[in-house]
Amino acid sequence: MELMVPLNTQDKSPLYEQIYRYIKKEIREGRITAGSRLPSTRILAQNLKVSRSTTQMAYDQLLAEGYAEAFPCRGYFVCKIDELVEVRQTAAAAPETRKREESACEVDFSPRGIDLDRFPFNIWRKISRNTLVDDNKAMFGAGDPQGEWNFRSAIGDYLHSARGVECSPEQILVGAGSEYLLLLLSQLLGRDRKIAMENPTYAQAYRVLTAQGHPVAPVEMDRRGMKVEKLEQSGAQAAYVMPSHQYPTGVVMPVKRRQELLGWAYGKPGRYLIEDDYDSEFRYRGKPVPALQGMDRGGRVIYLGTFSKSIAPAIRVGFMVLPQELLEVYRERAGFYSCTVSRIDQDILYQFITQGHYERHLNRMRAVYKGKHDALLAGLRPLERAFSITGEYAGLHVLLTHKGGMEEAKLVRRAQEAGVKVYGISGSFIHPEHNVYPSTVMLGYANLREEEIEKGCRLLGQAWLGRA
Amino acid sequence: MELMVPLNTQDKSPLYEQIYRYIKKEIREGRITAGSRLPSTRILAQNLKVSRSTTQMAYDQLLAEGYAEAFPCRGYFVCKIDELVEVRQTAAAAPETRKREESACEVDFSPRGIDLDRFPFNIWRKISRNTLVDDNKAMFGAGDPQGEWNFRSAIGDYLHSARGVECSPEQILVGAGSEYLLLLLSQLLGRDRKIAMENPTYAQAYRVLTAQGHPVAPVEMDRRGMKVEKLEQSGAQAAYVMPSHQYPTGVVMPVKRRQELLGWAYGKPGRYLIEDDYDSEFRYRGKPVPALQGMDRGGRVIYLGTFSKSIAPAIRVGFMVLPQELLEVYRERAGFYSCTVSRIDQDILYQFITQGHYERHLNRMRAVYKGKHDALLAGLRPLERAFSITGEYAGLHVLLTHKGGMEEAKLVRRAQEAGVKVYGISGSFIHPEHNVYPSTVMLGYANLREEEIEKGCRLLGQAWLGRA
Repeated sequence: MELMVPLNTQDKSPLYEQIYRYIKKEIREGRITAGSRLPSTRILAQNLKVSRSTTQMAYDQLLAEGYAEAFPCRGYFVCKIDELVEVRQTAAAAPETRKREESACEVDFSPRGIDLDRFPFNIWRKISRNTLVDDNKAMFGAGDPQGEWNFRSAIGDYLHSARGVECSPEQILVGAGSEYLLLLLSQLLGRDRKIAMENPTYAQAYRVLTAQGHPVAPVEMDRRGMKVEKLEQSGAQAAYVMPSHQYPTGVVMPVKRRQELLGWAYGKPGRYLIEDDYDSEFRYRGKPVPALQGMDRGGRVIYLGTFSKSIAPAIRVGFMVLPQELLEVYRERAGFYSCTVSRIDQDILYQFITQGHYERHLNRMRAVYKGKHDALLAGLRPLERAFSITGEYAGLHVLLTHKGGMEEAKLVRRAQEAGVKVYGISGSFIHPEHNVYPSTVMLGYANLREEEIEKGCRLLGQAWLGRA
Repeated sequence: MELMVPLNTQDKSPLYEQIYRYIKKEIREGRITAGSRLPSTRILAQNLKVSRSTTQMAYDQLLAEGYAEAFPCRGYFVCKIDELVEVRQTAAAAPETRKREESACEVDFSPRGIDLDRFPFNIWRKISRNTLVDDNKAMFGAGDPQGEWNFRSAIGDYLHSARGVECSPEQILVGAGSEYLLLLLSQLLGRDRKIAMENPTYAQAYRVLTAQGHPVAPVEMDRRGMKVEKLEQSGAQAAYVMPSHQYPTGVVMPVKRRQELLGWAYGKPGRYLIEDDYDSEFRYRGKPVPALQGMDRGGRVIYLGTFSKSIAPAIRVGFMVLPQELLEVYRERAGFYSCTVSRIDQDILYQFITQGHYERHLNRMRAVYKGKHDALLAGLRPLERAFSITGEYAGLHVLLTHKGGMEEAKLVRRAQEAGVKVYGISGSFIHPEHNVYPSTVMLGYANLREEEIEKGCRLLGQAWLGRA
């Protein structure tokens, strides 16, 4: 179906609204019939010469109001009129359908998902209820800029016992997610400070740091992590690393390399290591490797952690442990910023941790994810003659590298044709020409059920081996 | 009592912890007896040559564990041992006691407080409970970077009807408080952009903008607001203004001045007005003045709003309305940042607004604050022969200016001696030498009961008139 939406640039209402109103009218007046497929947001955007986000927003509105529905792998369809009432009741869930279209496939090995089926809703609800009692009105007043003291104490205790982090609550800063904490850290370090990053790295952190104006030096890795001699050559005064489970390579940095990194940091005054410990909670073989921070005797490691992976992405709570020297800089330059996390949310998390639910939840999720991890490795066994697997036994994704050198784009496309979404690694490289993994894709498994993982592996075998 | 705490710099534990442990031991072993007064945090810090925050933290810990108690205007006292168990149960409220010491007085006319006694805890709890149902797991996944669409729609509808703001949800950005939104805005405007601010102004906004590197031009005000010819001379490319109720002067900008400001913004390409509409909800006489944004036909006004004043400071939710041009800059430069507000909190607020609770709450609070406002004006009547009152009939504070020219510091000190805390205006001036109100103090009333307001006024009369 081609849609010729008359757009009026004189009209005061935004373009997406004009598109939405036009399509709605066409549906209501029967010119677009129920069950017919709407053009994709991309095609419509091309035809109307507007941005894709404009058509996406028009469609979101149609979905929200129940005029259309989105089906994975198929697209947007006009609803039957007699279904409108029913569909409208589920309108609150509509924004999700946008994601459904993007990851429109039978099995989506997204490395970003987490398993929300096991989220302890009942406990969370119970704690929330207890926090919101009438006589707890202090909870609604302004709080401590660094985060509430008791919450920071609980985080400190957890970090000490689970990650070997050595700190007092005074060194901990609570903030609305690790991106915000990086923004804050950038102010403490000074925006002209050159920061080394592993290459490939976590693209979101790279975006934040460059948006803040930092010169970023991409530094090569080997299978032990960032190469320290290259770091030395880079001229950087800080290095952002993920020693526990590097994203995306999955490399776990051995103790010797950690000591070398610390050696680099001690080598010249003012050098810092930024340790992003984003998914260190999940390790399925051997003992967990303690955080780099715990090895540091010179106050050179800044530790970043988050509850996004371990509890839920919607819980916008991260924390940062500052060494003493930076703590003083923080008090001077940034101590005036209010805490970005609501005290109510801090208290819920505080109760969740100190009542033992957090540890239980982590233990449960570790078992759940290990089951999925093992199902994935088992499902991938038939592919091992053509692919090597790396980054397993920790985190929530593994890497597959085609031994015959099939290009990433081809791997992704063939998988897509078979209804499976896998993710290239090239987007994680700071400069695409530095991509040393031309035939590698990522498979995340956190958000999939074990039977989906098995099916996905089967489909990948057909897609990649059948015609390889 | 003088405390000689032996501090060991070789000791791995932080100084505050050594102080806390030492005092705790002294109390436990009876060397400091129950009922005795501990030195103030300031004196102890001086004696031990540590920072005040160190002694404060040691005391907070003692309070939290129930070894000491804080009494307003008097200080810290050692608890009786047999009271320890009971006191410990209230440990969760301990961080509050720190504030109690700072504002240690019988009546505290803080301009920052709000009335939390009327917070609709039951409704809030009920909505929270409904949000946290098991089948609502999407709520815990990653959300829209700008904030959830339905929440932004609800904000847009509210802003349109209550404040005359003209925008689509697409232009709205939700963020964890107005400070965070200013950080973000600073990235969109570019950090070298010179920003004019009313002088005096909201000190926190000044701190954020200068910390981001903006050159700030303080611009003189008259009783209609920022002087536009001075703004023109300042060479600024953006102006941060509070037209609805300027902080701290309480000036409400009349329409003519608003038009002149818009005229300035239209005068050269790339100029913007940043409208901070922080407490516009509260106006006790005449019709509410619509937002400047609603008068703008050229897309030059950036609108900032928050729920901190209208609901609760702990609800870290603010919003920003971007004109079309900046929206495109946002998508290009900052669209990758995740939203800093949890989806659960967004949904609770969404329900709160769309179920009509927000409007009802505002109406109730407007009546409550009007009562307090009127009680304050009545209580201040005996002072009117010596003081002029300004900034009344809107917001949550008024200004008192001594006609005889008594200095601010003296006014504050005399009030303090009578057990009343009032706030000088000098801290709101960008350069202290620009202070054109040498004899003015602020009186906030939101957080006081009417009888406290009356008592405070009586004490102020004694303090200021008796010996004036």
